[in-house]
Amino acid sequence: MSAPPLVLATDFGLADAYVGMVRGVVFSINPHAHVIDLTHGVGPQDVRHGAVVLADAHAYFPDGSIFVAVVDPGVGTDRPAILLETPQHRFVAPDNGLLTLVCRRYDPEIGGSDTSGPAEVPNGCTAWRLTNPEYWRHPVSATFHGRDVFAPVAAHLSTGVSPNALGDPTTRITALSLPTPRPEGNVIRGRIIFADAFGNLVSDITADILNDMRVLGRESETVVSIAGQEIAGLSRTFHDPPGDGLKALLGSHGRLEVALVDGDASSALGASSGTEIVFRIG
Amino acid sequence: MSAPPLVLATDFGLADAYVGMVRGVVFSINPHAHVIDLTHGVGPQDVRHGAVVLADAHAYFPDGSIFVAVVDPGVGTDRPAILLETPQHRFVAPDNGLLTLVCRRYDPEIGGSDTSGPAEVPNGCTAWRLTNPEYWRHPVSATFHGRDVFAPVAAHLSTGVSPNALGDPTTRITALSLPTPRPEGNVIRGRIIFADAFGNLVSDITADILNDMRVLGRESETVVSIAGQEIAGLSRTFHDPPGDGLKALLGSHGRLEVALVDGDASSALGASSGTEIVFRIG
Amino acid sequence: MSAPPLVLATDFGLADAYVGMVRGVVFSINPHAHVIDLTHGVGPQDVRHGAVVLADAHAYFPDGSIFVAVVDPGVGTDRPAILLETPQHRFVAPDNGLLTLVCRRYDPEIGGSDTSGPAEVPNGCTAWRLTNPEYWRHPVSATFHGRDVFAPVAAHLSTGVSPNALGDPTTRITALSLPTPRPEGNVIRGRIIFADAFGNLVSDITADILNDMRVLGRESETVVSIAGQEIAGLSRTFHDPPGDGLKALLGSHGRLEVALVDGDASSALGASSGTEIVFRIG
Repeated sequence: MSAPPLVLATDFGLADAYVGMVRGVVFSINPHAHVIDLTHGVGPQDVRHGAVVLADAHAYFPDGSIFVAVVDPGVGTDRPAILLETPQHRFVAPDNGLLTLVCRRYDPEIGGSDTSGPAEVPNGCTAWRLTNPEYWRHPVSATFHGRDVFAPVAAHLSTGVSPNALGDPTTRITALSLPTPRPEGNVIRGRIIFADAFGNLVSDITADILNDMRVLGRESETVVSIAGQEIAGLSRTFHDPPGDGLKALLGSHGRLEVALVDGDASSALGASSGTEIVFRIG
Repeated sequence: MSAPPLVLATDFGLADAYVGMVRGVVFSINPHAHVIDLTHGVGPQDVRHGAVVLADAHAYFPDGSIFVAVVDPGVGTDRPAILLETPQHRFVAPDNGLLTLVCRRYDPEIGGSDTSGPAEVPNGCTAWRLTNPEYWRHPVSATFHGRDVFAPVAAHLSTGVSPNALGDPTTRITALSLPTPRPEGNVIRGRIIFADAFGNLVSDITADILNDMRVLGRESETVVSIAGQEIAGLSRTFHDPPGDGLKALLGSHGRLEVALVDGDASSALGASSGTEIVFRIG
Repeated sequence: MSAPPLVLATDFGLADAYVGMVRGVVFSINPHAHVIDLTHGVGPQDVRHGAVVLADAHAYFPDGSIFVAVVDPGVGTDRPAILLETPQHRFVAPDNGLLTLVCRRYDPEIGGSDTSGPAEVPNGCTAWRLTNPEYWRHPVSATFHGRDVFAPVAAHLSTGVSPNALGDPTTRITALSLPTPRPEGNVIRGRIIFADAFGNLVSDITADILNDMRVLGRESETVVSIAGQEIAGLSRTFHDPPGDGLKALLGSHGRLEVALVDGDASSALGASSGTEIVFRIG
């Protein structure tokens, strides 16, 4: 298996045949493709959720992996399609901000403004507008570019087609407004970005930020406020310290999470994407 | 990877280990098998839904692919198992009508009558009854032929076993009653065949039929009636023309679909498989 | 594809990116890995359910397969991680009883007591405590050993790393209390162990036990009692004998199951994991 991994990340779900059709198209172009599913459970048309999942998960994949990332509320409009090449990976996606947080690995400022819009492709990365229809599947459905544009382009890439054949270089990429929460003294205000299927609430406050606030060793001095509840202390795991109820912890996404032991924190708190979460230490 | 793709399409869902057992059986017989999931989300025991999904999706897969198609309400009864070979693909399935619309690619009349029943295998296609238990897994469960009959047969096929070893040639295949809606003047009456996981309602009125009605260029003159609602105009995408509400469009299945922008048309309309949909032009 | 199959069985679900991250980690270590999904639908943190699914499904996989089995309510505590080698397969798992019923294939007494606790590794099997962090992914998340411990260890195993490099041999493995129901005269009392996604109720009464009770040929003399209902006769399939309503049958798991024709027995009966089921013959 010499083909690079071709990693699928979409909001298509697995109940329908949409992902299956994408796989069929890939293997029709490259019979030796090595397709891996990252997830098809991004919230429908939730570009922000997709941006976070990609940012948190892509580094677990081998260098050289080609990601096909499709969360595409603007499908069929004139939003461009883009290929982003970072030092480790390549990403084929609609140019709608889905790659904002992948780019942030290479430019900490990207997506930091209060409005979404065009940004510079980070230093060390290269991007192309996917404008060459020779590498698409025809006829191109107006509602399913995942199957007819993104999958074929990625499959051709995986066979060794040059990015320059697929479109034109560009120095601009769309960035969503996803400002990093910043501490004000001993307090930081963030937001929940998604609830996972277990109801764990994942926030935009990263472990890096909390480390900068010197949380290590002072976990018992913290308070997390969310949806009118206060959670004292930062747990290391769901069961440490033992006991029921709400726990705040640095979860496996590398982010501040709120979980309910043996329960669903999202339902219990009525909290979801967008809910404010405040972290205080000392 | 020289083995032909072995494509799974079932109603087993992914919540249980049924699909996993099928995969295990395949790889136990052919360690070099190349298994691809088309879908496991066909409505439970909904042969009609399965027939449509297979028809709409199979052409996206490479020539030579072997489909294992299992939607099998009659499992354990004496309904035969069948292997259908078309000029592009092979299909291993219960002989219960699941392949009706695949066959229609080669014989436009098949499944057109008002009752289900035996039909001639289309010209250019060949079929076998899968009667040779040497290629099954034993003991054969009375309730899970997907694991014990269809998967083993397909795995053996993928290793190069001849169809003639697997059973006896047959000129008959079961066809479901799935008559194609026909226009009467400027009106065509069809039915919803399934709602996808987003609530989009997919009908039995194909793009081909509408093209025959000369819809192209006259999209603004159409009206779709469903569940007491009228939808004026045929949209190109979910957001074109902009605006909320119900849209009628030719979706990625190549069929007339009804969608609710940022919503679930199936729930909103109380419509589902079987609901009448009427298309009118001019 | 010369790598042994690496079979994933977890309670992670497919809605999130957790399984995707696991796949990424595996392929980062062994680009030639051959990953197969058995299931990700084990009930969240339901070790008993996981034990049954593994027991019923593992024999369908090729000899030499490496299972990564993760249902891990104690993640981040000091519960050990274990590698179990049976004559056919290898299992990488938390040592929390998840492998109890796999072990029972080699020692019919294991898990038979009324309390869970340490047991002898069965004759013919070998086990290791996975104590060598050199083969883990770092930093190790306190909440996601599936990604950071079990997947990397299994991936290294699949490249040929010796079990002795991964940790220390052990003669003890944790066994859950999962006593086999025993007939008392012509009656046997068992329990439902899980409901599948169709609502079929799967019990801990195995086909082997019923065969020992000489059920064969006397299917019409049986009565199954569950949740206040009595079901006369043992059906061969969901439709044999024809007719609606509740059916008791020996299902594809090799266990006594209760199903509702064209319905959901679990909802209809208000029965689920733990519900008593009584089988009587003659």
